[in-house]
Amino acid sequence: MVGHAFMGAAHSHAWRTAPRFFPLPLTPELTAVCGRDEERVSRAARTYGWSSYETDWRALVERDDIDVVDICTPGDSHAEIALAALAAGKHVLCEKPLANSVVQAEAMTEAAERARAAGVRSMVAFNYRRVPALALARALIEEGRLGRIHQVRAQYLQDWLVDPQFPLAWRLRKDKAGSGALGDLGAHSIDAAQYLTGQRVTSVGALLETFVTERPLPASASGLSGTASAETGPVTVDDAALFTARFDGGAIGVFEATRFATGHKNAMRIEISGSAGSLAFDAESMNELAFHDRSEDPATAGFRRILVTESTHPYLDAWWPPGHLIGYEHTFTHQVRDFVTAVAEGADPQPSFADGLRVQRVLAAVESSAAAGGTHVPVDPRQP
Amino acid sequence: MVGHAFMGAAHSHAWRTAPRFFPLPLTPELTAVCGRDEERVSRAARTYGWSSYETDWRALVERDDIDVVDICTPGDSHAEIALAALAAGKHVLCEKPLANSVVQAEAMTEAAERARAAGVRSMVAFNYRRVPALALARALIEEGRLGRIHQVRAQYLQDWLVDPQFPLAWRLRKDKAGSGALGDLGAHSIDAAQYLTGQRVTSVGALLETFVTERPLPASASGLSGTASAETGPVTVDDAALFTARFDGGAIGVFEATRFATGHKNAMRIEISGSAGSLAFDAESMNELAFHDRSEDPATAGFRRILVTESTHPYLDAWWPPGHLIGYEHTFTHQVRDFVTAVAEGADPQPSFADGLRVQRVLAAVESSAAAGGTHVPVDPRQP
Amino acid sequence: MVGHAFMGAAHSHAWRTAPRFFPLPLTPELTAVCGRDEERVSRAARTYGWSSYETDWRALVERDDIDVVDICTPGDSHAEIALAALAAGKHVLCEKPLANSVVQAEAMTEAAERARAAGVRSMVAFNYRRVPALALARALIEEGRLGRIHQVRAQYLQDWLVDPQFPLAWRLRKDKAGSGALGDLGAHSIDAAQYLTGQRVTSVGALLETFVTERPLPASASGLSGTASAETGPVTVDDAALFTARFDGGAIGVFEATRFATGHKNAMRIEISGSAGSLAFDAESMNELAFHDRSEDPATAGFRRILVTESTHPYLDAWWPPGHLIGYEHTFTHQVRDFVTAVAEGADPQPSFADGLRVQRVLAAVESSAAAGGTHVPVDPRQP
Amino acid sequence: MVGHAFMGAAHSHAWRTAPRFFPLPLTPELTAVCGRDEERVSRAARTYGWSSYETDWRALVERDDIDVVDICTPGDSHAEIALAALAAGKHVLCEKPLANSVVQAEAMTEAAERARAAGVRSMVAFNYRRVPALALARALIEEGRLGRIHQVRAQYLQDWLVDPQFPLAWRLRKDKAGSGALGDLGAHSIDAAQYLTGQRVTSVGALLETFVTERPLPASASGLSGTASAETGPVTVDDAALFTARFDGGAIGVFEATRFATGHKNAMRIEISGSAGSLAFDAESMNELAFHDRSEDPATAGFRRILVTESTHPYLDAWWPPGHLIGYEHTFTHQVRDFVTAVAEGADPQPSFADGLRVQRVLAAVESSAAAGGTHVPVDPRQP
Repeated sequence: MVGHAFMGAAHSHAWRTAPRFFPLPLTPELTAVCGRDEERVSRAARTYGWSSYETDWRALVERDDIDVVDICTPGDSHAEIALAALAAGKHVLCEKPLANSVVQAEAMTEAAERARAAGVRSMVAFNYRRVPALALARALIEEGRLGRIHQVRAQYLQDWLVDPQFPLAWRLRKDKAGSGALGDLGAHSIDAAQYLTGQRVTSVGALLETFVTERPLPASASGLSGTASAETGPVTVDDAALFTARFDGGAIGVFEATRFATGHKNAMRIEISGSAGSLAFDAESMNELAFHDRSEDPATAGFRRILVTESTHPYLDAWWPPGHLIGYEHTFTHQVRDFVTAVAEGADPQPSFADGLRVQRVLAAVESSAAAGGTHVPVDPRQP
Repeated sequence: MVGHAFMGAAHSHAWRTAPRFFPLPLTPELTAVCGRDEERVSRAARTYGWSSYETDWRALVERDDIDVVDICTPGDSHAEIALAALAAGKHVLCEKPLANSVVQAEAMTEAAERARAAGVRSMVAFNYRRVPALALARALIEEGRLGRIHQVRAQYLQDWLVDPQFPLAWRLRKDKAGSGALGDLGAHSIDAAQYLTGQRVTSVGALLETFVTERPLPASASGLSGTASAETGPVTVDDAALFTARFDGGAIGVFEATRFATGHKNAMRIEISGSAGSLAFDAESMNELAFHDRSEDPATAGFRRILVTESTHPYLDAWWPPGHLIGYEHTFTHQVRDFVTAVAEGADPQPSFADGLRVQRVLAAVESSAAAGGTHVPVDPRQP
Repeated sequence: MVGHAFMGAAHSHAWRTAPRFFPLPLTPELTAVCGRDEERVSRAARTYGWSSYETDWRALVERDDIDVVDICTPGDSHAEIALAALAAGKHVLCEKPLANSVVQAEAMTEAAERARAAGVRSMVAFNYRRVPALALARALIEEGRLGRIHQVRAQYLQDWLVDPQFPLAWRLRKDKAGSGALGDLGAHSIDAAQYLTGQRVTSVGALLETFVTERPLPASASGLSGTASAETGPVTVDDAALFTARFDGGAIGVFEATRFATGHKNAMRIEISGSAGSLAFDAESMNELAFHDRSEDPATAGFRRILVTESTHPYLDAWWPPGHLIGYEHTFTHQVRDFVTAVAEGADPQPSFADGLRVQRVLAAVESSAAAGGTHVPVDPRQP
Repeated sequence: MVGHAFMGAAHSHAWRTAPRFFPLPLTPELTAVCGRDEERVSRAARTYGWSSYETDWRALVERDDIDVVDICTPGDSHAEIALAALAAGKHVLCEKPLANSVVQAEAMTEAAERARAAGVRSMVAFNYRRVPALALARALIEEGRLGRIHQVRAQYLQDWLVDPQFPLAWRLRKDKAGSGALGDLGAHSIDAAQYLTGQRVTSVGALLETFVTERPLPASASGLSGTASAETGPVTVDDAALFTARFDGGAIGVFEATRFATGHKNAMRIEISGSAGSLAFDAESMNELAFHDRSEDPATAGFRRILVTESTHPYLDAWWPPGHLIGYEHTFTHQVRDFVTAVAEGADPQPSFADGLRVQRVLAAVESSAAAGGTHVPVDPRQP
């Protein structure tokens, strides 16, 4: 595993926990974690249960005792690491967004395709696909319970940047993060919209905004502490991204990703309206799915709050009795289950790098549209 | 009162009821109602309690025993009736949207300005301003409880057109209704956004969509019955309108108005995010306002569900004890209270025709932007 | 109408409004209102639209131009007025609880039975039966959608007595009000439970509590103003009533009525659990009914939020389009509709005085049980 | 660890996971798991990560390489195992309810007191105390944010017994489980009520009910599979328990524990109403706490939905960014953290066996009251 911050903790937990709850065909071993600061990475290895550590990801990629490379670093290093890992014949699980640019994502997707011929698997970590409520939503849509899809409304609302004194962390720097709320949050919404509807975004009309354009530099190098120094620097990414979209199946959508939605902490919400029904989800109530079935008698119709904790719900047979909730990190545990199962079975795990590229192309079109004043910009339609 | 359908019933109730609950300086008399079909209008007069009726609005406007003309007809006749009524020195209350075009709205606004010099009052019926929860929201924003406004997210979700066999009622014909979801629903959202934030929309980037382009003609002339004939005709208005917006105070917004949001009946929702707090409203729970106060200790902060039924809340001292709800028609009763009070005091009721024109200009910009592929189109900035 | 305070305003509105929205076989005339204070009753007559007034209810009862007597006074005068009105051949609508004692309620029920033989109708005003959501709940239970009823959980939560300085209003005096939260709030819950389930309470085990035993005397004679004097007096009724119950159909129930539930204003809640489904209601969201259908596939089952505003829902064809809410006073308007319709058709309106007596007997059993330390006390099983 | 079913899986996960997220003074080692069926226990050891296994708990208790015994068996064996473990000088964590009778619980509490003198620690696993939202609730009450506590309303609603064909599992047999919904669910509610309010229950008036008195015997010996055989047997425990309560601080409460609340899966709900505020919790939304602060201006007061995911909330600094939920098993991980920390520091972990005994005495009083027809029965007031 490369990287050991927030995402590294979540991924480590998932690698440790998946085999305890799911009957996996292969048992993951936590061989080595990688980070540049030796003191911090050695502590991470102990804390998270990795047998060894490296301070150079190139060394990690070359080790013979490693079959899988899990990339949890900021987006600017995804491409380089993934290309090397695939070239070395390692299966790759890469955090989202796939890369910081379409060019990088294309290179990664091509590399993944080539590696695939040699039986090497790759996957991008859109973990919301592994929320049972969203997996159930996908199943219901596939069954036709929503009929023809008319509309998507997706919001991803956070508020951690409302304070103008919050420091200029790496997520606020275009060179490290690629974009702001757009790539960090909007990427999840785009992938979820395409995954759930089975339709692809074909064009977008966008507006990006940065409300606070100058922030204090972080006091610590990592930029994670939340404490600020006296110096300031420019915010080079968006605080909020708004866009409308058209899909290839005739649906339209409206998207909002923001870090300025005061009072919302992680409201990754998506609602799909179809001719036969509707579905709505909010990650702040991630064990629930709202479902409206239009075939119901209007006298008793209404949005149902499905508590997605039944043993027949996706992934839930491994967990607790009905009504006992699961949390955020379970999405990573489910991801490990699916990734390991696919690797063992010689199948391609989903979402693929090609799926990640598709999201990247939408992100690029959003940025183009915003730069062009909002006019609808087509998303590159090529199949990777 | 001109027109006696859904809106006419609501307005009649308001004229009858306002003096029973509010201490009005003048007591409204329900003198005459007007409609083209004598049998139907005479029945409406009896049912709703009007002393007489007319079948030609010109006759109504000329009657000496009438001081106020209340226009509840489809949008295509607003301008003509309002201009005549103002010219005849009658105070005018006009349903929204003010007109079917900016040109009409400009003429009406100019006429209202001229009449005003003679003490004649005019008002456009954006009744959501009279929902106590939204009046409270406005008061909180004026007090500065939200700080700097960053974002508006407005949805107006209905679903009565999902059935492709629903007939081609007048609301689906551009010549009668001007536009579809945009003018019928979006107009409320735009007025609410501008009213609540105190900011004006300066540009919009839009996407309009008509999902069902051909519908059965209505079986009855009125087109209200919901029954359909075998013949079909083209739908000439939008089923859904999506747009992003910029405001003159630096806020940005995202709007959705649709009649295809399966499961939502009248979800007129608006949320305002500011640097010091947030407010959220949903007309399907119209007695509630959600408020997040960022000055709270994070350990106990959260969106509060304010049940807007206290005697200190706007309009509520006239009604019931705390926790006893009011309904949709109360907004019209409140409107009558405010209109009558302003007329009696020689003050200008709000929202004015100028406010209606401002909304009309936003609607026009939305249509221009959609026609131009979504590029942001400036809203005509002239002050009426 | 006798009495013209909070309830009088609601009833007046209902008498005025019912014929405007519902096609009634008879049109109510607001002939006379009665109150002891001439200045106040004359003002009430003007405000609420009554043609005349009386200061002695005996005079009202004797007037030839009156066919219906509507009793909106405190409980201690219900029996005397109702008996006189029935004896005079007037149809009677009486506020709940029917009386302050079982003895009074028995006399009233006997008088109603006698009058009935002469075609004189009587009804007790448990207005929650006219909430569309509860009327729908009753219909669903009658259709068997809940199967065998196992459990009732009823709460009626208010908080207006939490402040120990709130004055000793008439509702806190046993001689005027009979009991406290029990008769004021619990009576609604008991009637709703019996009405919805179709089962009768057979025994109760209770606990009554008065948290604040001494309160300032009200500054004004009416005791309505909420202002307090320096003198205090003893609170002679319960602040909270808790009881468990058994029903004759095998169900069990738990009830709570309280004026000390901080933060709840009028949370009249009832949930019924059956072998085939469940229903839940909360008056603070009175346009909604939650329904769980156990015949659903568990994968998509969940409580549905039915927005009870469809034209096919009880009473709703008279009101607004779907999603447009109605309020508290509509329950009284619906009550007038049903009462007038029954009178015109020569039918017995529901709930009858006998229904009121049944509730009274449960209230009496609750008081007996509480006095006896909580042991289950049977409810007098006689049929009135 | 003794026992390896549902609770065993949760406890194993907690022992493995706590040291990965919390800086523990001691690192737990998963030495041995115990179960009677060798095949099943050996598989459990592998799955859950225990180094060895035993088939006789006496052997486990005698092992020198074991410092802590974690008891996850049905209630009938708690006393025997705990007494032996404490006698052997092992720290003991025991699932709830502490025992199946007061006599057993008294013996356990005395043994725990004696062992304590030798530095041996013991704790009963009321895991809901480790839900961050309830820990926050306790902190707010301790700070005085609720003022004088007036009322408790506690519900624990499940529905897994509604189907009369559900088999007679061990939880439905008095000899194994002690009681039904009362001890399984009500015990949690009683502990939570006493813990949160800081008051003890002094008397209870109760009603117990068994709706389905005869059920099919389970097809498998374990009784866990949910499949049924053709033979039936008597249900010897309650399906639902209802009771009112008085507390030593002047509060009153109403409790319901049921397995027949159709549509509710694990609705462990508790609301506390005080003179200065209210708090409400529902385990089906376990990351949330509702708080009403009566010191707020009524114009902006309302129940707040606190999303209990801030780093300043109890236990949350170890987990994810705000808005990212945790699940049911985290309560066990937190329990391990607190237990291990107390053991390392030579402190007494909470809740103690004495707390467990206090709950047991309330359960006994509930059964006595129900047997006596509901009259209020005092809870044995002795301090253990």
